[in-house]
Amino acid sequence: MTETFLIVGGDAAGMSAASKAKRDDPDLDVVVLERGEWVSYGACGLPYYVKGDVSELEDLVAVPPERFVEERDIDLRTGHEATAIDTDTRRVTVETETETYEQSYDYLLIATGARALEPPIDGLDREGVFSLHSMEAGRQLKSFVESEPGIEHVAVIGGGYVGIEMAEAFRAHDMEVSLFEMLPQVLPTFGETVGEAVAAELREEGVDLHLDTQVQRLAGDERVRAVETAEESVPVDGVLVGAGVVPNTELAEAAGIELGETGAIATDEYGRTNAPDVYAAGDVAEMDHVVTGEPAHVPLALTANRAGRAIGQTVAGDRTRVGEIAGTAVLKAFDLAAARTGITDESEAREAGFDPVSVTITAPSRAHYYPGGTELEITMVGDHDTGRVLGATIVGEEGVAKRVDTVAAALHGEMTVADVEYMDLSYAPPFSPTWDPVLTAAKVLRGKLD
Amino acid sequence: MTETFLIVGGDAAGMSAASKAKRDDPDLDVVVLERGEWVSYGACGLPYYVKGDVSELEDLVAVPPERFVEERDIDLRTGHEATAIDTDTRRVTVETETETYEQSYDYLLIATGARALEPPIDGLDREGVFSLHSMEAGRQLKSFVESEPGIEHVAVIGGGYVGIEMAEAFRAHDMEVSLFEMLPQVLPTFGETVGEAVAAELREEGVDLHLDTQVQRLAGDERVRAVETAEESVPVDGVLVGAGVVPNTELAEAAGIELGETGAIATDEYGRTNAPDVYAAGDVAEMDHVVTGEPAHVPLALTANRAGRAIGQTVAGDRTRVGEIAGTAVLKAFDLAAARTGITDESEAREAGFDPVSVTITAPSRAHYYPGGTELEITMVGDHDTGRVLGATIVGEEGVAKRVDTVAAALHGEMTVADVEYMDLSYAPPFSPTWDPVLTAAKVLRGKLD
Repeated sequence: MTETFLIVGGDAAGMSAASKAKRDDPDLDVVVLERGEWVSYGACGLPYYVKGDVSELEDLVAVPPERFVEERDIDLRTGHEATAIDTDTRRVTVETETETYEQSYDYLLIATGARALEPPIDGLDREGVFSLHSMEAGRQLKSFVESEPGIEHVAVIGGGYVGIEMAEAFRAHDMEVSLFEMLPQVLPTFGETVGEAVAAELREEGVDLHLDTQVQRLAGDERVRAVETAEESVPVDGVLVGAGVVPNTELAEAAGIELGETGAIATDEYGRTNAPDVYAAGDVAEMDHVVTGEPAHVPLALTANRAGRAIGQTVAGDRTRVGEIAGTAVLKAFDLAAARTGITDESEAREAGFDPVSVTITAPSRAHYYPGGTELEITMVGDHDTGRVLGATIVGEEGVAKRVDTVAAALHGEMTVADVEYMDLSYAPPFSPTWDPVLTAAKVLRGKLD
Repeated sequence: MTETFLIVGGDAAGMSAASKAKRDDPDLDVVVLERGEWVSYGACGLPYYVKGDVSELEDLVAVPPERFVEERDIDLRTGHEATAIDTDTRRVTVETETETYEQSYDYLLIATGARALEPPIDGLDREGVFSLHSMEAGRQLKSFVESEPGIEHVAVIGGGYVGIEMAEAFRAHDMEVSLFEMLPQVLPTFGETVGEAVAAELREEGVDLHLDTQVQRLAGDERVRAVETAEESVPVDGVLVGAGVVPNTELAEAAGIELGETGAIATDEYGRTNAPDVYAAGDVAEMDHVVTGEPAHVPLALTANRAGRAIGQTVAGDRTRVGEIAGTAVLKAFDLAAARTGITDESEAREAGFDPVSVTITAPSRAHYYPGGTELEITMVGDHDTGRVLGATIVGEEGVAKRVDTVAAALHGEMTVADVEYMDLSYAPPFSPTWDPVLTAAKVLRGKLD
């Protein structure tokens, strides 16, 4: 009898799993339930769509829906929302605009993703308040930005990825931008060095930066008119809330599927939940961290793609681990790039049982005599007891994103700082000094570890 | 009694060793004999000096001589040539313009570097024929390029690093350039994919490329007038020979110091030769290859710096391994960058006992929808038996140099192709597709290894 692989959620994790499972086992019935209209899209591209670098929302779609259906023979059902799971009878209740039905499964993947966190701020429901965690939200924000030339001043709440990328997008439209961050620095998971460099860049690009500032209320009538903090009221024409995401775990929880300590769905090394033949992947699920070995929740695109693909392979009969995450990330902040990997926060490292030692170095991105080079700042963290490298951050104008990958690879290889110091990395004057900045950071850090 | 650390050769390996030894053990007498006038310079920058990107030859100097003497208290003797070593009595014969003397040592480092290979071509001694392996050669070539506006057509012999970088430099001066390479491709150690891409780039930039072509004779009177091959005679106003390098082993050989199979000085993991307390490092010495575990001769700048530094540390009392090499290299070829690491040649891999499998993929350097991205071509080679990744090449316009370092790190970590496929690498639309091209290459290669 034909087995059914049912997938709830049609973005990165879900569609990667669907494609891989069907490719590896064409006899499998692969059914995808997506409550919205969009599948397989790059939400990470939304800021660039709003900015104008990407002209059509459709450009963000990696694989058009018809290709899943026609070429890959996947039963893709958009506008179908899974509302309940019965893990005993292996049936999912599905609602559409017109009907409710039951869909049985042999294997189930929960890939329901995450949604924009709604911070405890009064007035989030006023007109002119946006978030950016869906294609529809992106379309609304774009139309807001383009259709109303009267919009002169916008507020961004949150100094994480979305907040910073959107500050850049709004500035590209010549809007005044006030950015509010509750914590004393932007990009808190990137550490102080990066936070300070990016804050300086934001200010240089004309962003009015309010750190350590809690927004209390979005004031106005129907429409938002001002952002209110304990100290002041800043008049604005619109607000973008980028305060992080929360995993969409409700469907899973109601079905008795266990969450981990992070609040995302707990999974094992194959992406399995506590319910038989029920998997979870992507922004809704935890993954094991390569440095700590503990479950972590780092909702990023590659993690979702990779885990989805591995689960698809497993369901098709070839048991495959979902892999570990290093929390590797990069973002563009105007002319700067900021990157991180591993455990860079010292208290986080201590909690994980390490005795962290860290250094911050400044080094040129090219040979000192080659024109056009810029300075990079690298913070590298190692464990005093084992000598292991635990993580790093890099900030600078060029050669940031893929330089951090060298450290990410070292984390996956469980290398020591000394191992990193002695890696044979590429050198030519236009691309690097003789000692790549990563090597220099490791060299200095090793001196402190001895 | 104060011990003497004597170093023969004042470039990367020698000066790194001198600086490190003196810093770690200030009681050590550190003496450097350099037969020329320049020390601690970046020969890799010479093409950019000739091109005009670097305005002064002095800019290529990493640390000025007076700093070694005054700040680091190193007894630096330029214009002093070591002409003989007696490893029994631990004495070196030194010649200057005016005297000959004996210098005793407790520890000796041979860092005599390499020189430009003279290919078996008739007429290399004519005027207008240059090589580029010393600062003085760089100065002569620059003055040739600048002082004679009558120079319209130059030939480059050799399609390696120097040949390609110099073709770019000559084209920047609007000269016609004919490049002759004996083998059927340029950059043979980078494999076919890179060779073809770089050849296409050279042609597009107006370089007249003669592959598979042996130059037989440089014809002319006192001065070179034409490059002659079996087929034709190409009239030229000057010739740059970049046919590789040969290690300067003569001094060591005469002292009974053993060479390895590659023709460079054989050393152990601490850089020691067969003679007691005699070390060798840099372009004159072999290093162990991280993939094969066998001695290799890859004369590059980082290797020299790193090994020199480690030997300095060892001599100062802290025994330190010189590390292994992966043969990681990158070069700029007009708008392209070409990079390599590890063992990428299948017959070389077979000789080393592997069963190589390779794939070549094309992938974008940025998210498909983000403007300005270009295509990268990656060839990755793995071992069928163990699944280990053996090496990779990358060619493209952006994100090449530091992407190859990710693979280099994987080589140092002795990772499998599957390990690489599951690395958590950085992603943001301006810097990479969700699956970094390195991951895509690993994914495809793993499919072929199963």
